[in-house]
Amino acid sequence: MFAPVYLDHNATTPVHPRVLDAMLPWFSERPGNASSRHEYGRAARKALDEARQRVATAAGAHPTEVVFTSGGSEASNLFIKGAAACFKPGLIAVSSVEHPSVREPALALGRQGWKVHQIAVDAEGRVRRDDYAQMLRDQPLLISVMLANNETGVVQDVADLAAQAMMTHAWFHSDAVQAFGKMPVNFRDLNEHGVHALTISSHKIRGPKGAAALILDKHVELRPLISGGGHERGLRSGTENVPAIVGFGMACEIAVQDIELKAARLRALRDELEAGLFAQGATIFSQAAERLPNTTYFAFSDIDGDTLVGKLDRAGFAIASGAACSSANPEPSHVLLAMQVAPELARGAVRVSLGADTTAAQVRGFLAALQHTLFQLKRLTAVAV
Amino acid sequence: MFAPVYLDHNATTPVHPRVLDAMLPWFSERPGNASSRHEYGRAARKALDEARQRVATAAGAHPTEVVFTSGGSEASNLFIKGAAACFKPGLIAVSSVEHPSVREPALALGRQGWKVHQIAVDAEGRVRRDDYAQMLRDQPLLISVMLANNETGVVQDVADLAAQAMMTHAWFHSDAVQAFGKMPVNFRDLNEHGVHALTISSHKIRGPKGAAALILDKHVELRPLISGGGHERGLRSGTENVPAIVGFGMACEIAVQDIELKAARLRALRDELEAGLFAQGATIFSQAAERLPNTTYFAFSDIDGDTLVGKLDRAGFAIASGAACSSANPEPSHVLLAMQVAPELARGAVRVSLGADTTAAQVRGFLAALQHTLFQLKRLTAVAV
Repeated sequence: MFAPVYLDHNATTPVHPRVLDAMLPWFSERPGNASSRHEYGRAARKALDEARQRVATAAGAHPTEVVFTSGGSEASNLFIKGAAACFKPGLIAVSSVEHPSVREPALALGRQGWKVHQIAVDAEGRVRRDDYAQMLRDQPLLISVMLANNETGVVQDVADLAAQAMMTHAWFHSDAVQAFGKMPVNFRDLNEHGVHALTISSHKIRGPKGAAALILDKHVELRPLISGGGHERGLRSGTENVPAIVGFGMACEIAVQDIELKAARLRALRDELEAGLFAQGATIFSQAAERLPNTTYFAFSDIDGDTLVGKLDRAGFAIASGAACSSANPEPSHVLLAMQVAPELARGAVRVSLGADTTAAQVRGFLAALQHTLFQLKRLTAVAV
Repeated sequence: MFAPVYLDHNATTPVHPRVLDAMLPWFSERPGNASSRHEYGRAARKALDEARQRVATAAGAHPTEVVFTSGGSEASNLFIKGAAACFKPGLIAVSSVEHPSVREPALALGRQGWKVHQIAVDAEGRVRRDDYAQMLRDQPLLISVMLANNETGVVQDVADLAAQAMMTHAWFHSDAVQAFGKMPVNFRDLNEHGVHALTISSHKIRGPKGAAALILDKHVELRPLISGGGHERGLRSGTENVPAIVGFGMACEIAVQDIELKAARLRALRDELEAGLFAQGATIFSQAAERLPNTTYFAFSDIDGDTLVGKLDRAGFAIASGAACSSANPEPSHVLLAMQVAPELARGAVRVSLGADTTAAQVRGFLAALQHTLFQLKRLTAVAV
């Protein structure tokens, strides 16, 4: 198989070899259903307990606060729809740059009588404090603001936003899928500031797909999306995905080891990448905001993002145009539109997201390939004109 | 690790070696998000398409009728809650022997203004036609009757039940999680008889946990449980679990190969097992009904099922007491209570479920261990008295 350099770690990540090793015995050798009372079942239960402990430790939470789900989208839906089902319709506020897994359930509540406020962001993609403060006066019941954005990498000051919302008694959720494993995330600290729930996901941190968690303050009442055998304290029924959860636990442990050092390394690579992009004439989005260390989101005027992604793919570099999860959608990124980026420039948006294995040589190779591609594209444009 | 003989295949199954082989490249070597537009993403998308074709072929469906979910519980909840959300509250009918993943969402609708009719079964666990016909007169909106029961193995004549319901225009769902892979299941045939949706699951057929499907007639309108990026035709958002879905596809292909031959082999083993159980004085539940070929559900009067499971586990045989998914629940099986089995006898219920690798020697070894265990338990009882 042709193996391009993978620079799309915000979309998904390769499973870490130690994670896969931890998972393997649970497929065939130890086929237990964790609810079974025999040796195989008890072994599976013990493995789940250990994984829950690992996830909790990595996220600064207590194991009883970890609700395993099949993915980040499920975890965020569980919070938003599950909490909303315990209220009469009222106000839900989400930032205007949320991932579809938060934005869409909020809009679904909007079709069921809820008022949905999409909190404005500034030109850098940060929540606008004036709009947020005004929203708080309308007594929201639910608030969700992501810790870090999947496209721009912009980090919101969620602790401070939640603290401001405490007086409203709203339940405050944060989608930490992109932040977790790329910067320190501590649920206990956030919870003390008024954050009631966090979504984290395995496949963004070199764990397998099929596992994620809602880290949940036990004071919050939720109705389950999936009812049945009563797994996960009744909040998420269904046979536990033992291999995936074991892998998630291991991935969490690995992700938070030396996280500051790893972040510093990525930040240095990212800065080198951005210097090169800037030299080639790129507009880099949200550059003035606090961002994840691995993410660069940029555009060249008059160059279509999808075209650039396709050319670079053939040149051996896997990157993203807009957000991967909405690539089927030809509209420009809602994140950039919320930031008041002109639609023409937004259509050029391309994301590079570095990972633990990304090397300086790969970044330099990417910059060289980009330069060559831009040269070709501009020549084509010139010919066309 | 101590490795008892695994005779609990209705709870979960060991992943088939060919299934695991098919999955392995998708963890680390090919880390694509199927929504990504680069080489890795396209490879993942192609793998999903192929798996969808395999699942469809094995289930007698068209690939566009396959909605992937994270598990059987999610698939059944998606149908029941997702269809219910498109109606004003009315009548939902489910058999009184449904798995909790169907029973609990139905009861949840009951708390939201729906009328829930639990269709009575006879002493063998078959849906009572008189009760069913009477229910149909009350204009149900949704009906769910399982194809085969997880505890007793009883097979319902779902095609005939659905055909009778056609005049009511109710949507008819069947939980085929236990039937699929153990007996021929053909969605096209069932659909012509009026079945609109089937739930099937990977981990019951030697596929991995974390993948399942709702096979869905496209005339049925559903609201998604999980909203977001719009995956699975908008019915189930969330990054697709590529390795698990690839494994599910392969497991489907393997499961339906020579299914009649494999079923005949299991039935012969099961008959030998039941002859031995009968000789030792067991009551075998639902023996007069059409059943799955691999499942035996039985009890000895005055012997607690959990105790027997514990003793046999230590003797090297992994079996189940009641249903694995409700083992935390000390109540006797709701399935046996619905069959009017006396609670004392129901507390003794033990299930043996054979699998593709089960041998005659294992069955004979189990019968010998059981005889020894019963002898010990009866001696203990005699001493206690």
